[in-house]
Amino acid sequence: MRHPNSGRRRRQPSEASNGSSIASSRRSSFAQNGGNGTSSRKSSELKGPCERVIHSAQDSLFSTSSGWTNFRGFFNLSILLLVLSNGRVALENVIKYGILITPLQWLATFVEDYSFTSWPNLGLILGSNLQILTVFGVEKILERGWVGNAFAAVFYPLMVITHLTIPVVVTLKHTSKNPLWSVAMMSIYVIESLKFISYGHVNYWARDARRKISEIKSQVTELARKTSDPKQFWDLKEDLSMHQMASAYPSNLTIFNIYYFMAAPTLCYEFKFPRTPRIRKRFLIKRIVELIFLSFLIAALVQQWVVPTVRNSMRPLSEMEFSRCLERLLKLAIPNHLIWLIFFYTFFHSFLNLVAEILRFADREFYRDFWNAETIAYFWKSWNIPVHRFAVRHIYMPMTRNRFSKMNAFFVVFFVSAFFHEYLVSVPLKMFRLWSYYGMMGQIPLSFLTGKVIRGGRTGNIIVWLSLIVGQPLAILMYGHDWYVLNFGLTAARNHTVGI
Amino acid sequence: MRHPNSGRRRRQPSEASNGSSIASSRRSSFAQNGGNGTSSRKSSELKGPCERVIHSAQDSLFSTSSGWTNFRGFFNLSILLLVLSNGRVALENVIKYGILITPLQWLATFVEDYSFTSWPNLGLILGSNLQILTVFGVEKILERGWVGNAFAAVFYPLMVITHLTIPVVVTLKHTSKNPLWSVAMMSIYVIESLKFISYGHVNYWARDARRKISEIKSQVTELARKTSDPKQFWDLKEDLSMHQMASAYPSNLTIFNIYYFMAAPTLCYEFKFPRTPRIRKRFLIKRIVELIFLSFLIAALVQQWVVPTVRNSMRPLSEMEFSRCLERLLKLAIPNHLIWLIFFYTFFHSFLNLVAEILRFADREFYRDFWNAETIAYFWKSWNIPVHRFAVRHIYMPMTRNRFSKMNAFFVVFFVSAFFHEYLVSVPLKMFRLWSYYGMMGQIPLSFLTGKVIRGGRTGNIIVWLSLIVGQPLAILMYGHDWYVLNFGLTAARNHTVGI
Repeated sequence: MRHPNSGRRRRQPSEASNGSSIASSRRSSFAQNGGNGTSSRKSSELKGPCERVIHSAQDSLFSTSSGWTNFRGFFNLSILLLVLSNGRVALENVIKYGILITPLQWLATFVEDYSFTSWPNLGLILGSNLQILTVFGVEKILERGWVGNAFAAVFYPLMVITHLTIPVVVTLKHTSKNPLWSVAMMSIYVIESLKFISYGHVNYWARDARRKISEIKSQVTELARKTSDPKQFWDLKEDLSMHQMASAYPSNLTIFNIYYFMAAPTLCYEFKFPRTPRIRKRFLIKRIVELIFLSFLIAALVQQWVVPTVRNSMRPLSEMEFSRCLERLLKLAIPNHLIWLIFFYTFFHSFLNLVAEILRFADREFYRDFWNAETIAYFWKSWNIPVHRFAVRHIYMPMTRNRFSKMNAFFVVFFVSAFFHEYLVSVPLKMFRLWSYYGMMGQIPLSFLTGKVIRGGRTGNIIVWLSLIVGQPLAILMYGHDWYVLNFGLTAARNHTVGI
Repeated sequence: MRHPNSGRRRRQPSEASNGSSIASSRRSSFAQNGGNGTSSRKSSELKGPCERVIHSAQDSLFSTSSGWTNFRGFFNLSILLLVLSNGRVALENVIKYGILITPLQWLATFVEDYSFTSWPNLGLILGSNLQILTVFGVEKILERGWVGNAFAAVFYPLMVITHLTIPVVVTLKHTSKNPLWSVAMMSIYVIESLKFISYGHVNYWARDARRKISEIKSQVTELARKTSDPKQFWDLKEDLSMHQMASAYPSNLTIFNIYYFMAAPTLCYEFKFPRTPRIRKRFLIKRIVELIFLSFLIAALVQQWVVPTVRNSMRPLSEMEFSRCLERLLKLAIPNHLIWLIFFYTFFHSFLNLVAEILRFADREFYRDFWNAETIAYFWKSWNIPVHRFAVRHIYMPMTRNRFSKMNAFFVVFFVSAFFHEYLVSVPLKMFRLWSYYGMMGQIPLSFLTGKVIRGGRTGNIIVWLSLIVGQPLAILMYGHDWYVLNFGLTAARNHTVGI
């Protein structure tokens, strides 16, 4: 007689099983039952199967004393419930509003904006070639020693300030209602500014290295005159890399080299970037398809899901009904986070890999495993590697080398980041509210909470996610509300129909 | 110079990394860069940190060629999103309906029902002692041989049919509007019926064993007369357990023994159950607290979340608007599934462990890891162990021993289960719609799908969950709709206000 489910997966009680558990007294109860379970196989020919012990002393799996730990099925359940419950909200949305997605209108907006209002943005982007060539020219002059480092110390700050001011002036004077093009243009200007800083910084290091080497050379001559001990020469080997750097300079100062850097998916200048042997066509096509499909998906989700939700939040926000505000916030949080995740993949994986593949740029570390981040600090170190590398190489390290405390350097990095976040939001919206700035600066106490108080772990990871899920829609609602009031007035916001 | 995030967790590319990936060409690009990364530590005193290689050839983590597999953080995210998105729906519900939970009214209903309408249910439960004593008396008579097994073969079916018919007659004649008490009473009657079958079956086996032993004894006497070879006696050792069984019988036929079995959290009778050495007070208190709190939670969730949803589904269901019906179904699915999970824990863990602890009943395997079930068959084998054991021992095994095919036996088990499901729903609601019956019988094709076509795995697990999540609210909506129409008429259902 074989039990029909004898092939079932049996539990494996852990070694650490509670001593007072029932399982530990199993032996004695088997004995109590006469241990006749062993004879079950032989009695298969008997009519009565009662000889097989049906009951044996054992704990329920949910009792910790059972030592059972395999609850993997609940993960599938949670994913399934997530899909179903949000699928329902999406369905409810479609029932209520119908399909709001209008790709043809997007195209119309695109053409319309381009013919009248967006020329300034496109013009600014094309015009920035002038600044690139200026930076290149200045580096050429610096290399030849016609002006000193003091000139660079004045030129670069002025250059960057000018480069960041031009789009602000144009955008604020400009009458376009659609801030999307301004954001795109200004992002490019910010990226260019950071690249200018890196370019200038690295070339300065190279000139420094060249100067030091010539000093060392004269020392060597001095040493060689005094002694012939080869050990003394050996010590100079440390500076091999400095030699290499100095030797690569100034051959790097070419138009092609600076334009390759401006196009490359990195903010950190190097004389030679690692390259891939060839462009992989399949890889390229996959990234292009992803880019098109996911961009469409983001636009569709925004139009269908985010816009009605933000619009319906205007009245609760003006009237400060707390429970309704919270409900709106949570309603916005889910699609917003979904869109953020899709955006992350689209930009940091599809788009940057596409650009890198075209340029045969081999370093594809555009992000690390931020999803496993157990502290806010690790999140900021891992979700945007180009910016992180820039901040470490051109802000944090120079500051610590110049005897600023690590805390100060850390603070400055977040301050710069907060500035650019605010810059990219406030100017296109023509509203100076500082919500973005506070959002970024709020990362500092959060970072201490997750790093020093919670000390990472699963709770840390959950706090990181929570800050993203809740923080972003909070900022969106703040800006959305203020923008609505600014453009349509407080009464319009209050009178707006609320529907859940 | 130490990189501030040198302690970060680095990826570990798998051995199976795609040969054509960027990572595999890393060595060459390092060479291209002059391999100067190695000197970064020594150059810590230099002002320019440019010597440290910033870029190196590597794949993005989302590229399969990177070999990265740790996406654990996304599990936390999914749990968090699940809590937040359903927390929002719950908040929306409270904003819309206010607090609907009325514990005082529950108490009132309880008292009211008890004083007038529920006496019959309580009376029936107390009255079932008569049937228990009848079964005991018959077993005594059978033991003494005053009547034969033929009598038992007539008595037990009649007994069980009567036992299952009495509550039907009383419930249908009875005018109570609240079907909850009827369900409780009828569940007890079903459990008692199954226990009667097991009790009769096991005692029959014992009598059979006793008869066989007396036959063997006469054979032995015969053998002893003919020969004195001890090997012949040895062969009889197989029947040791049969001897034990026969020797335990009829000392098991006591009032205490049958009542212990009737109270014990099992449906399978055995002469001796494994016992725990003592009642653990802490364990007992924990289970009592769980039982009270979770029962309250279930009632609150039903009143606040399920009732309004079912009520609002009446019109879409009568008008057969497909998208609205689907939306309602999904809206009901989440709280229903949550309640089912809580109910499962409350009944199968808290309640049965509580009863077992009081009775010092040591076998606590009331469920197995049904959450990991990859086939429908494994789900049914693991989620309700008392019923599963009963079905195997008293339906499936006796049938296969009597040369029925396994398929037939399997079919009969599901048929019996479907019958009892329908019985426990139709009679209290006084509506014979067979939705439950079809639901259970539908498990058979589903079982073939998951077992033979999908062959388990993660997809199988997801199908098992999906059948639970969607199947149950489908049945609830069917019964809810029909009950509403039956009690208030079709027009009332159609006119019911629909609000999402």
